[in-house]
Amino acid sequence: MDISRLLERYTGGDRRALARLITLVENRTPEVPAIMRELYPRVGRAMLIGLTGPPGAGKSTLGDKLIAAFRAQGKTVAVVAVDPSSPFSGGAVLGDRVRMQEHFLDPGVFIRSLSTRGRHGGLARATREVVHVLDAFGHDVVIVETVGVGQTELDIMGLAHTTVVVLVPEAGDTIQVMKAGLLEIADVFVVNKADRDGARRLKNELEVMLHLRPAAAWNVPVLLTEAVANKGIDDLVTQIVAHGATRRASRTAENDARDRVVEWTEILRDELSQRLDRALAGKSFTSIEERLRAGDLDPYGAALEVLEDRDRLRVLLGGAG
Amino acid sequence: MDISRLLERYTGGDRRALARLITLVENRTPEVPAIMRELYPRVGRAMLIGLTGPPGAGKSTLGDKLIAAFRAQGKTVAVVAVDPSSPFSGGAVLGDRVRMQEHFLDPGVFIRSLSTRGRHGGLARATREVVHVLDAFGHDVVIVETVGVGQTELDIMGLAHTTVVVLVPEAGDTIQVMKAGLLEIADVFVVNKADRDGARRLKNELEVMLHLRPAAAWNVPVLLTEAVANKGIDDLVTQIVAHGATRRASRTAENDARDRVVEWTEILRDELSQRLDRALAGKSFTSIEERLRAGDLDPYGAALEVLEDRDRLRVLLGGAG
Repeated sequence: MDISRLLERYTGGDRRALARLITLVENRTPEVPAIMRELYPRVGRAMLIGLTGPPGAGKSTLGDKLIAAFRAQGKTVAVVAVDPSSPFSGGAVLGDRVRMQEHFLDPGVFIRSLSTRGRHGGLARATREVVHVLDAFGHDVVIVETVGVGQTELDIMGLAHTTVVVLVPEAGDTIQVMKAGLLEIADVFVVNKADRDGARRLKNELEVMLHLRPAAAWNVPVLLTEAVANKGIDDLVTQIVAHGATRRASRTAENDARDRVVEWTEILRDELSQRLDRALAGKSFTSIEERLRAGDLDPYGAALEVLEDRDRLRVLLGGAG
Repeated sequence: MDISRLLERYTGGDRRALARLITLVENRTPEVPAIMRELYPRVGRAMLIGLTGPPGAGKSTLGDKLIAAFRAQGKTVAVVAVDPSSPFSGGAVLGDRVRMQEHFLDPGVFIRSLSTRGRHGGLARATREVVHVLDAFGHDVVIVETVGVGQTELDIMGLAHTTVVVLVPEAGDTIQVMKAGLLEIADVFVVNKADRDGARRLKNELEVMLHLRPAAAWNVPVLLTEAVANKGIDDLVTQIVAHGATRRASRTAENDARDRVVEWTEILRDELSQRLDRALAGKSFTSIEERLRAGDLDPYGAALEVLEDRDRLRVLLGGAG
């Protein structure tokens, strides 16, 4: 595979090259850092929107309507679904799929799901890199969808400029919102399926909790939507855009410098971890592993046999020596 | 500092040497793998008990009573508190502290808190190693206390042979137990402060949820305790011991072999991450970081300057070449 040729096609706007690059990033191919260095100069133009909330809150329908609203403004949109229950990820009922078809045929919309299977904390890193690839391709808006339940999902939301937390009246309990850490990450709250009982009450409860916090440059709004009926979507778009403007106005050069350093250390940590995985998968240390399994070595003795040996360390780090 | 002399004193039963070794492990000194290799042959004798649950459930009082119960059986006991709100960690009201004094004066009891401040996912690893040090010292029982809220705390509980989840009637909502992942990790449920309203109801709800799961060799009991009045403690000790026996009976050589391999890869991953931290803290890459902050380099370019350079990689890996 010729990566420079692939990057050339990607830069020329070839969507198949885009899809292929994302697959390389998702599969954590050893060339990821080199690929990312090539496209990094074009990263940073897109509006990055996070969409999270419990399963069944209607995130996907809302995402669908957001796509349509941004498309109506002439903007191109990409969606990354890290939510295994999302129709974007293929885990949906037929009605959802049919509804998505219209977007699949629109060259201004690119939809991709990411597998959440067994990773060593690398899912947030992979998601960030997929977002970079979509951003550098020239998308005006990139939407990342997760199910808001764990630390990994909160980490992923950290990459968004504006995080929209979607709830439904039945989810009800605002205490659970706090326990799940959603209060801290929300830039905009949406109470979806607002025609149902309890929507106003949930909105009020959220507003009370939000008012207990210290005043800030941005006041987190709580919006009522009925995504299936396309109600409240325009207001949501307005608030997302307004939050983005407030955020940009408060950013300093020091923020950017610090973010670059943090991303650098994350890349290094992730890369070392991946080189370890590749060395283990590549059976570079089979003899050590066999003695360990047999009980002739303990885990620390086995670790030191790798760490104290210059040649083995070189193998572990993958052709660096 | 002479580590072999320290290990000698530790092996001879010197509690100050024990405390010093734990500090070295907690501070992630570069000698940790070598220290752990020395004492690993004596690891594996202790009964490892995890104690978790929400803040205010009375975990510390319960831990206090467990210490007394095991001491009455002539067993030595160590406690590792990873719970920042625990009196073991010093975050307590005066009454709790005074109560703990009796154990502080008992040479058969060793109590230690671990800081939870900023780590790169290394807290679970550090806790496991502190438990190894306490185990190899000869303690019969090691109790690890966490606040059951996040993935890190669940990971820490993974090192226990028997995990006790402590709830109080006010915590009430069994749905929250499920959402926090506590149902999956509990070997024994304790409803503490059982004299309060709702204790029976919570016990019943937990039992209903537990019965929905497939049958297993161990049926998770739901016990009622009043730790402050020392009620229900004997039954709790009995269930902990019974669970330990059931667990041992079902363990195979293959379980042990797999655990050794998993621990080996965790040690390697953690060690690489720490060597990265040391290299960054040691200002080994100051010039790269300065160009990155100034915007003359992007994060990937900066990462590749380290990863593609044999000498820099050697620096990163800490004198391995």
